[in-house]
Amino acid sequence: MTAVADGKYWVGFDLGGTKMYAVLFDAQFRPVARRRKKTRGNEGAEAGVERISHLLQKLLDDAQVRREHLEAIGVGAPGPVDMEEGVIHEAPNLGWKDVPLRELLEKEFGCPVAICNDVDAGVYGECRFGAARGARTALGVFPGTGIGGGLIYEGQIFRGRNSSCLEIGHLPVVPNGAPCGCGRRGCLETVASRLALSAEIAKAAYRGQAPHLLRVAGTDLANIRSGVLAEAIEAGDRVVEGILRDGARALGTALAGVVNLLLPDTIVLGGGLVEALPELFLSEVTGELQRRVMPAFVAALNVKLAELGDDAGVLGAAAWARQSLTNRGSRTAVFSTT
Amino acid sequence: MTAVADGKYWVGFDLGGTKMYAVLFDAQFRPVARRRKKTRGNEGAEAGVERISHLLQKLLDDAQVRREHLEAIGVGAPGPVDMEEGVIHEAPNLGWKDVPLRELLEKEFGCPVAICNDVDAGVYGECRFGAARGARTALGVFPGTGIGGGLIYEGQIFRGRNSSCLEIGHLPVVPNGAPCGCGRRGCLETVASRLALSAEIAKAAYRGQAPHLLRVAGTDLANIRSGVLAEAIEAGDRVVEGILRDGARALGTALAGVVNLLLPDTIVLGGGLVEALPELFLSEVTGELQRRVMPAFVAALNVKLAELGDDAGVLGAAAWARQSLTNRGSRTAVFSTT
Repeated sequence: MTAVADGKYWVGFDLGGTKMYAVLFDAQFRPVARRRKKTRGNEGAEAGVERISHLLQKLLDDAQVRREHLEAIGVGAPGPVDMEEGVIHEAPNLGWKDVPLRELLEKEFGCPVAICNDVDAGVYGECRFGAARGARTALGVFPGTGIGGGLIYEGQIFRGRNSSCLEIGHLPVVPNGAPCGCGRRGCLETVASRLALSAEIAKAAYRGQAPHLLRVAGTDLANIRSGVLAEAIEAGDRVVEGILRDGARALGTALAGVVNLLLPDTIVLGGGLVEALPELFLSEVTGELQRRVMPAFVAALNVKLAELGDDAGVLGAAAWARQSLTNRGSRTAVFSTT
Repeated sequence: MTAVADGKYWVGFDLGGTKMYAVLFDAQFRPVARRRKKTRGNEGAEAGVERISHLLQKLLDDAQVRREHLEAIGVGAPGPVDMEEGVIHEAPNLGWKDVPLRELLEKEFGCPVAICNDVDAGVYGECRFGAARGARTALGVFPGTGIGGGLIYEGQIFRGRNSSCLEIGHLPVVPNGAPCGCGRRGCLETVASRLALSAEIAKAAYRGQAPHLLRVAGTDLANIRSGVLAEAIEAGDRVVEGILRDGARALGTALAGVVNLLLPDTIVLGGGLVEALPELFLSEVTGELQRRVMPAFVAALNVKLAELGDDAGVLGAAAWARQSLTNRGSRTAVFSTT
C-alpha cells in the first residue's frame, strides 16, 4: 500500500443490534481495512449515526484513503428499510424509527450511499461472491433468534411492497400453534428458530434429558447459544440432537413450499446455528426438500452452506451499493410501462 | 377499417387443452378480430402447429391484415415452457413434448414470436390491462381443475429455474394429506381446487345433503362444473356453500404464506370457479389473509377479482410478446454481473 492510497474504494457496513462492522474494499472488492464497534442503539439515532460516521472515518484513516476516493458506501440494517429513499423505517433492536441514514451519510462523506436490509445484504454477498455465485435466482435462509430470508433475482434484491418481503420465518406452519413474536400463531419461527429450539432444549435439560448441556449452559435461554448446542451434541446429548434435527426438518418442510413457488437456482443456508451444525442442517433440510418438493423439481434442487460467514453482509452491502449506482441509470428502462 | 389494413398489429394466442383462442390487436391493443377452434392435441404436435398456423392466417384474413404488418405473436401454452428458447417442454393436456413452437411460427409468419405459460399470460394481462394495472408486483391465483399461479415482478414474468415457478397449487398444506396429481400428498390442490371441492360436494350429494345439486348434476365429477355449483348455492344447498367456503379459506391460509414471502402490490383472483362465485371467494380469501398475514402487512393487502375473463390470456400473451422485444435489447443491461 502506498503512503496515501488512491484509486477507488467501496465501504460495506453491517449495522447490527449489538455491534457494527465496517470493511473497506478496493476496486476488486478485496478487503483493505476492517473495524468493529459496539452499536449502543439505546443512545438514540443521532448518537448512533455519529458513531457510524466516526467508525467509517477511522476505517478510512487506517488505510489512509481520502473521502474523495470513496465510490460508495453500502449499509445493511436490521428490520424493514426503504431502499429507494435510504430510510431505516424501524429497527426494533436499536429502537430507531424513520432514520434517513442515506441522506445523513451522503452529506457527511460526499459519496453515494445505499441502504438495504441486513439479511438481504448477506444473501446478496453470498450470491455475488460466495455459495450462490452465478445464480440467477438465489434464496438465502438464516435461522437465528428469528429466521431471516432473502431473495436475489436476476442480480437484484427482490422487493415486495414497502421493500418488505421474504418473511420466511413467518410462514404459517402449525394451525393454532405457539404464539409468535409477530402477533400470529404457529409461524415457522415458533418451531425452527434458535429461540424456539433452545426453549425445547432447556425443557429437556430441566427434565434431566440433556446432562451435558445442563452442566455447561443450565436452563437459561440466554446461555443456550449455537456453539453450546454443537458441543452438547458432540458430548452425546442425543435429545439435543433430536430436537435440532426436528427443527431442521421443519425448516425443510416449509422451504419445500418456497421452492415450489420460486424454484431458485441455489438455496443458501447460513447464520450462527447453521455455522455451528453445518452437516446436520444441510442433510436434514436437503432430505426434507427431496421428499417434499414437486417431483419435477427434485433434480433442480441445489442447497449449499453459506461460505462468507460474517463478511457476507459487508461484501453484500458494498456490492449492492455498486449495483445501486447501475440501477439509478437503468431502472426506468427495466420497469417499462405500457 | 380500410379495405386492406396497414399499421402495426399484435396477435395474442391462447393454446388451451381443448380449444385455441386467437385475437388480433391493433397498435393500441384494441381487439380487431377473434377466432376460436378446437385444439385436438391428440392428433400430434405437427398437425397441431398446422391448425395454429391455419387459425392465425384466418384471423389475419378476417381483418385483411398482411403478415408484414404483424409486429409479433404471443402464445400462452399449458404446462412448463422455455421462455428463452420458445419451446413447449411438456403439455400433458395435449400430449406434446419439446415442441419448438417459436421457431416454427417465426418461420411461418416472418415476425417475432414469444411463448409463455398460459397462467403467466393471464396474470400478465391482468397486470397490464386489468385488475392489477400499475402494480409493480402482482400475484395471480386461478383455482380450477388445479390451482394456477403467476407472478409479475417489475413488468416481467417471474421465472424460476427452467422457467418453472409459482406452483401455488402444490404448496404443502396438509401433512400426510390426500394424494395429489403431482405425486406428493396434501398439496393445496388436494383441498382447494375445483376438482377437490367437487369431490367433496359429490360425496355430500350422494349422502343426500345437496338435493339441488344432485338433481341437476348427479354425482359425476365431470358434471359438477363451476356454474352448477353457483346455481346449487343459489337454490339453497347450504352444504355446497359450506364446502366451497372451506376451500376458499384454505386458499386464503396458503396465500398468507405467499404474501409473507412476496408482499405483492395486488393479488388477483380469477378462473372459472372464482368467476362463478366472485363474492364468496373474495370475502373468504380476504378475510383469511387479514387474519393470517403478518400484522405489519395487513394494511398493504390488496385482493381483487380478475377483470378480463377469457381475454386476459390473449391480451397478456400479445403484450408479453411486445415486452419480449424490449427485453431482447435490454436484458444484458438488467442482469449485470460482477
